[in-house]
Amino acid sequence: MAEEVFSQRTTTCGSLTKADNGATVVLNGWVHRDRNHGALHFINLRDRYGITQVVVDDDASKELQAVANELHLEYCIAVTGVVRLRPDSMVNPAMVTGEVEVKAEKIEILSKCAPLPFQIDDGNEPREDLRLKYRYLDLRTQGMQKRMKLRHDFIFACRKFLTSRDFYEIETPTMIKSTPEGARDFLVPSRLYPGKFYALPQSPQLFKQILMVGGMDKYFQIARCYRDEDARGDRQLEFTQLDLEMSFVKRDDVLSLMEDLFGSVFKEVMDYDLPARFRRLSYQDALNTYGCDKPDLRFDLPLSDVNEIAQKSSFATFKDIVSQGGYVKAICAPKSETVDFSRKYITSLEDAAKIYGAQGLAWIKVGENATFSGGVSKFFAGLEDELATKMDAKEGDMILFVAHQDWKQCCASLSAVRTKLGKDLNLIRKSFEFCWIVDFPLFEYNEDEGHWEAAHHMFSMPQAEYLDSLESDPGSVKGDLYDLVLNGYEVASGSIRIHDVELQKRIFRICNFDDETAEERFGFLLNAFRYGAPPHGGIAPGVDRMVMIMAEQSSIHEVIAFPKNTAGISPMDDSPSVVDEKQLEDLHLIIKYPESKT
Amino acid sequence: MAEEVFSQRTTTCGSLTKADNGATVVLNGWVHRDRNHGALHFINLRDRYGITQVVVDDDASKELQAVANELHLEYCIAVTGVVRLRPDSMVNPAMVTGEVEVKAEKIEILSKCAPLPFQIDDGNEPREDLRLKYRYLDLRTQGMQKRMKLRHDFIFACRKFLTSRDFYEIETPTMIKSTPEGARDFLVPSRLYPGKFYALPQSPQLFKQILMVGGMDKYFQIARCYRDEDARGDRQLEFTQLDLEMSFVKRDDVLSLMEDLFGSVFKEVMDYDLPARFRRLSYQDALNTYGCDKPDLRFDLPLSDVNEIAQKSSFATFKDIVSQGGYVKAICAPKSETVDFSRKYITSLEDAAKIYGAQGLAWIKVGENATFSGGVSKFFAGLEDELATKMDAKEGDMILFVAHQDWKQCCASLSAVRTKLGKDLNLIRKSFEFCWIVDFPLFEYNEDEGHWEAAHHMFSMPQAEYLDSLESDPGSVKGDLYDLVLNGYEVASGSIRIHDVELQKRIFRICNFDDETAEERFGFLLNAFRYGAPPHGGIAPGVDRMVMIMAEQSSIHEVIAFPKNTAGISPMDDSPSVVDEKQLEDLHLIIKYPESKT
Repeated sequence: MAEEVFSQRTTTCGSLTKADNGATVVLNGWVHRDRNHGALHFINLRDRYGITQVVVDDDASKELQAVANELHLEYCIAVTGVVRLRPDSMVNPAMVTGEVEVKAEKIEILSKCAPLPFQIDDGNEPREDLRLKYRYLDLRTQGMQKRMKLRHDFIFACRKFLTSRDFYEIETPTMIKSTPEGARDFLVPSRLYPGKFYALPQSPQLFKQILMVGGMDKYFQIARCYRDEDARGDRQLEFTQLDLEMSFVKRDDVLSLMEDLFGSVFKEVMDYDLPARFRRLSYQDALNTYGCDKPDLRFDLPLSDVNEIAQKSSFATFKDIVSQGGYVKAICAPKSETVDFSRKYITSLEDAAKIYGAQGLAWIKVGENATFSGGVSKFFAGLEDELATKMDAKEGDMILFVAHQDWKQCCASLSAVRTKLGKDLNLIRKSFEFCWIVDFPLFEYNEDEGHWEAAHHMFSMPQAEYLDSLESDPGSVKGDLYDLVLNGYEVASGSIRIHDVELQKRIFRICNFDDETAEERFGFLLNAFRYGAPPHGGIAPGVDRMVMIMAEQSSIHEVIAFPKNTAGISPMDDSPSVVDEKQLEDLHLIIKYPESKT
Repeated sequence: MAEEVFSQRTTTCGSLTKADNGATVVLNGWVHRDRNHGALHFINLRDRYGITQVVVDDDASKELQAVANELHLEYCIAVTGVVRLRPDSMVNPAMVTGEVEVKAEKIEILSKCAPLPFQIDDGNEPREDLRLKYRYLDLRTQGMQKRMKLRHDFIFACRKFLTSRDFYEIETPTMIKSTPEGARDFLVPSRLYPGKFYALPQSPQLFKQILMVGGMDKYFQIARCYRDEDARGDRQLEFTQLDLEMSFVKRDDVLSLMEDLFGSVFKEVMDYDLPARFRRLSYQDALNTYGCDKPDLRFDLPLSDVNEIAQKSSFATFKDIVSQGGYVKAICAPKSETVDFSRKYITSLEDAAKIYGAQGLAWIKVGENATFSGGVSKFFAGLEDELATKMDAKEGDMILFVAHQDWKQCCASLSAVRTKLGKDLNLIRKSFEFCWIVDFPLFEYNEDEGHWEAAHHMFSMPQAEYLDSLESDPGSVKGDLYDLVLNGYEVASGSIRIHDVELQKRIFRICNFDDETAEERFGFLLNAFRYGAPPHGGIAPGVDRMVMIMAEQSSIHEVIAFPKNTAGISPMDDSPSVVDEKQLEDLHLIIKYPESKT
């Protein structure tokens, strides 16, 4: 039998220590660094496991010297040599292999490397599209290698935990019926059935519910999901979620399972201790206290409702808003060593608030003994003690106000201020702060289309006390919904599901799906519910985002091996791309280019 | 907080034993059986974990009796009651819970069930499309539940093993560039880029090779793959493979890894001992000995080359074929208790042979002391001892011959006879017989298109001794290819890959891809090879097929939760289906229906 001809590694570049002194070894890897001192060559050889220093001595054979001279960065080579101790002065305690080096006896070039578009080095930050085009080089950086390992470890630990809890991982189909609602479906034209299409799933939602009807009891899946959304921030066309569903459960069963899951996984993967139970906030309280439904609890800075004091003040703007049923909320920015509360800085806070609808940001500086100055301080004459106490404000702090007719906009604007203060004043603790947001509204009114729609999705259970008033007062119905929030990101969303045909149809109707359309689109789910569907519920943490947060990154691109760029393009393989005429013909398709392009 | 109102299980239907006598429990599950004896009700309550007998005593309250009377098969219910021992005469030792029953105190109907399209019972075999349409009912059968568990166990055990061997599971994209070769790609139209398409991957082949160039060293993935093939036998549009790739390996490294993997997995999942190393057969030997490259080794019946004896015979047909360079091969069917070698039976064997190109099937019956009778026996007068010895034929056996000008057709025809004999004569041992087939030809000649093409795929390494004769004699080039065969099925296919740009381009050219087309389609792989690509190789076992064989099934539909039918349709959700005009418009597509339909 013919074998490929190269000297195969006997060990990796991350394993040699003093104990191996004198051993003959073969290493395979890449030239990470390459330095000459006259005829003496130092090569840092790298593989996934580490770096080992290889030395070509100055008395090496001509042949060996010649090969060493030929080497460049990122050449892939095989080195045969003998392990020896480094001179004391050369010992590198920061490296596992830092006490030894390999005296090369033979070097084989397995594969050369063209001039690099960027250096393989974590200090180096080439622009994103270059990194994506040459992803095979970018993946060689220690950062990407560590993050791919973290992702593997995280997902494997989730699987281990769920398997230990009697869950089956079951693969659901990814070529399914198109049932668009929410985002657009990606479609896959059928060749065998002209004019018909499969769709890629936005999530395995309906299939996991059907698995529950099928008696599978506890299901999970690391599922690829697809949404044809416009390029926006950190979205990917395809993303991965840990999809799970359980039968015969109530809300708190799902919540405890997730707490146990992440407790176990964070301990195993990062040796990090999470609290046994996560904090729970109602949607209402989350907005009132943090201004948003995904609060970053790594810092405090709560929002306060100051309607009462505002009405007592002499500030007409506040008084008017309160008297018209509006809201005045305030936050207390603590005295900072690094940021002074200059006009310019306050303007930058105001700009943040305005994005979310605030007309302006009112402010007061707090001095010694609750004396107020600047901004709207004069309107609070006589109310200093009351306000300072309410806001727990101390000397050097600043109180910031947003007043708005609309509760959500008031909250959101001040939340933006809170977020900016957290960052700017360096208040963010290095920790993982999970919390649950519960008791969400079930419906939202879609102003554009003039009807109610599901805030989460149409399969979530209304809380029992609202069952009689679904149609008469959709706006106040609360759902058995829950979001898991981590460090200011929504990382999972779930609910107890409807398992009753009639209730499901009521929800469809409220969301403007008549019975016929509902049967046409979701008939297979309604049908399933007719055959003894069990109560069930579930949740689906986003894997990309979870790993991103665990890796302390700010983009999911950093934890996906081959992401698309923000325009939905892969600069490496150049997809999407044009295809052969024959392929289109087979699929019974004609392209209709937009007017301007024809 | 509003909770769903139902009594939640305190234990499952598979766990109560004598030790629980007297305990008050709640069970949730489905009515599996329901029998009345007057006012006495016996309900077999089923969940994923088992079945427990629930009894409504004849002195139960009117309310309870009324609910019990309302029950039908597959109603989903909650039962609150007290565990008690069954009378001795009613103990069922075949059930885990067979010593006890639950005296019902309360029954809640969680969900009713419409009249069943078929009974949820493994003895019952509804037709396939009915099973697929009501898959949620079919999934409740013990058979489907066990197979979903087996699939979970198998895949999880693979992951555990590979993780213990330092593999990272890395997700590769499923919306990629279309690079059709072999099967057709499924396409996904881009909304943002009119006229452009993503493709669903036929396998992660190129991306896993790029991960090796990216230094990931050892990769695996339970990967969804897609092929737009015509409905044929047991194919699915989407299927799952255990995709893996390793750097710095030679063929035998991949083979041993797989042997270790399956050894570990079969032991863990089925408590089955595989041999430490699997048998290896060259492609040539496999065809010569078993007539095909995926031999079922659960029975012996080797083929013999009998050219020499055939030429000494007086049978003109055989002599002509041999003298013209053709082949005569024979197989010895052993005497059978159950099958007599009647004319009719021999004709059925001949029919099997003819499918693969045989003109006919010659035969000889072997009597006492190697006396021959019937068929072509007279032509072998004087050669009885030689032939009987060669074929190891004993009294009552039958020798069957195929003669053909073409070696492959000769082998294939007699292989079909071998397979039929194996089944009919009950020769198949209940076991798992793995073997490797190695040394495959690298190229096959495509008569239709008039050029050579890759027998496996274009990324496989030619064996070193053929490197100089690739272009001059493609037909005799052997590749560093390997197939893993289990019980007559090809369950995995792999190779050592090319990692050199120039060699890769030579292969492309031989396969009729000029340099320009090759760069256009596979430029990103060629580019990657320019930056220090390591030697690498891999393999990809088919998960559906593996689990099917482990579950002793003959269709992969039995081990997939939601398969499409053989026409590529899902009878449950009715995909593929027509979509909204708006969706097509968004995707810049017009349907061109075939002539006959417009």
